[in-house]
Amino acid sequence: MSETFISEPPKTLVLADGFRFMHGQVIAPFELRYETFGELNADKSNAILVCHALSASAHVCGKYTNDSEEKPGWWDGLVGYGKAIDLKKHFVVCVNLPGSPFGTTAPKSVNPATGKPYGSHYPWPTIEDMVESQRIVLDHLGITHLCAIAGGSLGGMQVLMWAALHPTFADSIIAMATGSAVPVTGVAWHILGRKIIETDEHFNNGDYYDEPDDSLRGLQVARMLGHMTYLSAQSLQRKFGRRRRAGTRQFEIDSYFEYQGKKFAALYDANSYIRVQAAMDEMDLEEKFGDLETAFAKWRGKTLIVSFDTDWLFPVTESERVSAAMLSLGVPVQHRMIASPNGHDTFLIDYDLITPMVREFLSSP
Amino acid sequence: MSETFISEPPKTLVLADGFRFMHGQVIAPFELRYETFGELNADKSNAILVCHALSASAHVCGKYTNDSEEKPGWWDGLVGYGKAIDLKKHFVVCVNLPGSPFGTTAPKSVNPATGKPYGSHYPWPTIEDMVESQRIVLDHLGITHLCAIAGGSLGGMQVLMWAALHPTFADSIIAMATGSAVPVTGVAWHILGRKIIETDEHFNNGDYYDEPDDSLRGLQVARMLGHMTYLSAQSLQRKFGRRRRAGTRQFEIDSYFEYQGKKFAALYDANSYIRVQAAMDEMDLEEKFGDLETAFAKWRGKTLIVSFDTDWLFPVTESERVSAAMLSLGVPVQHRMIASPNGHDTFLIDYDLITPMVREFLSSP
Repeated sequence: MSETFISEPPKTLVLADGFRFMHGQVIAPFELRYETFGELNADKSNAILVCHALSASAHVCGKYTNDSEEKPGWWDGLVGYGKAIDLKKHFVVCVNLPGSPFGTTAPKSVNPATGKPYGSHYPWPTIEDMVESQRIVLDHLGITHLCAIAGGSLGGMQVLMWAALHPTFADSIIAMATGSAVPVTGVAWHILGRKIIETDEHFNNGDYYDEPDDSLRGLQVARMLGHMTYLSAQSLQRKFGRRRRAGTRQFEIDSYFEYQGKKFAALYDANSYIRVQAAMDEMDLEEKFGDLETAFAKWRGKTLIVSFDTDWLFPVTESERVSAAMLSLGVPVQHRMIASPNGHDTFLIDYDLITPMVREFLSSP
Repeated sequence: MSETFISEPPKTLVLADGFRFMHGQVIAPFELRYETFGELNADKSNAILVCHALSASAHVCGKYTNDSEEKPGWWDGLVGYGKAIDLKKHFVVCVNLPGSPFGTTAPKSVNPATGKPYGSHYPWPTIEDMVESQRIVLDHLGITHLCAIAGGSLGGMQVLMWAALHPTFADSIIAMATGSAVPVTGVAWHILGRKIIETDEHFNNGDYYDEPDDSLRGLQVARMLGHMTYLSAQSLQRKFGRRRRAGTRQFEIDSYFEYQGKKFAALYDANSYIRVQAAMDEMDLEEKFGDLETAFAKWRGKTLIVSFDTDWLFPVTESERVSAAMLSLGVPVQHRMIASPNGHDTFLIDYDLITPMVREFLSSP
């Protein structure tokens, strides 16, 4: 058994001059919430940046307390003492991304100039903004080079954007369940999620914080749809099938949806949800650079791409396209496809399958 | 080129004593809208029943007028003079199903007792109710035996229910893109569609007919989600990809969704939508009969099952299960899988692939 990791409290970097979003808007002051795990060594050469996905926070692993009720961080299966990303060797940094509601200045944050939440006035962040926020925190920590950058889904998109924008910053990257752009199926699901939220009149175009209950039904239902896209036909069949809740005619999948939707909407925020998903949809390295070979033209770091055969959101073909482009450039890239019924969320579930790959990858020269 | 078929106007059978739904409610009087195509022969032995799907009507084929602008019926590619279901040989009957808003007494119909639409008071019909409504119309027409019963999707579910409930009524059945129950993936999509409609406050629990515009946004968005399930990843990629509308950042899939959603909501009705989808979800021949062998225990007619390799709603495995059960009973069943990128909707698109199968099937002894 691995030792339970007790993590430090979240830290906040206040940018007094503000954060300039890629599309030109500035929010000042701007707070960047981040967490660090493990010890940075003397020459600052053991740092790994972890990039989080849509619903996660900077709390990658461990618990803040010894409380047995506390849930550990979102990638606790992969990051910790003796785990694939081993905190006995590595220092891990994770930044709550601009737009997310978990500590970094967000749409729900109060604008000091107006005394009201930014709401509809909050900018629409991009993946480039997320990378820039991470670069600022690393700079603040005096880290000018990384051993690795790792993430899955939206986190993996940030990883690929790092390789394209700052090709000499890291020795290696690990990108799971991701691609250089969201394929149209995922874009369509995201668009539907946004429309569902907008159909809820309480959303009020994003200025709903005066409402007594900000747990919007539209956000609940949008999240239920999101949940579909993270699962697979196999996992739905295995977990729920056509079973009904005992003593009722309600399908178990319906009951599960309601539970997940309500839980998520109580924690998350509709303005954040639509912005972070839109950032995913807008990233397209082929559109930005002309083609993937140009996007990764200067990237020569060791690369691990992991895909999952049942992933509806980022099918295996998206990983194949990225790795083919890197291969043609001479990048030392390996693409590993994992067979699992757990769909897109496999990177948060099947640690027994992922751990050996990541461990071997990080320990290889 | 096949001759254009000019169809007769829709007919209405008024049930003065009403229609008794399976769950006990009676609506009286009750109107059944149906259409017939071709000529019933003297001994009434050339009739084929066609069962329509979610968004269709009793208008199977042909045009009411010679107007070149008029769109032909929904299965015009398969039914007509010289087509797979040949109106030179066969007499075709189709009944608008109870719950659908295209002529049969529906939730939007005015309850003569109150002077208001039935709305939330309209019963939740079942597939059994749909079959019973068809049986009543056939009885009215003096047809006691059918050459065939044919349909796709929800229509195919009715076809299978006919074989289970009235196993000696027809010589043969043709069931496409269907199964003995909707698998959990489709159930989940349907549940989400219902929740999207309910999130629209104008829906008002189904009593929204006083609203100035009954084209509910919730219905539009639910239909957009429905559209996703009728397509496939391949067809989405081929038709839309990540392309944007010229001169804008709007994804083409978004523009397509809006067009389809608005068009549908202007024609259809939210109360009908949630009821007809729920009827699909509630059908489960294994649950009803114990197992499929018992469901089809008395069915011995010639059977053609057609599935499509990219169908998200009724995967090929659902057709395999039905045909395996029938095979074990000695039913002369053939299951044909068609490879097409067009997903669930293939039965409404790829007539060049379907026509030879149906033609050969109907002409074989």
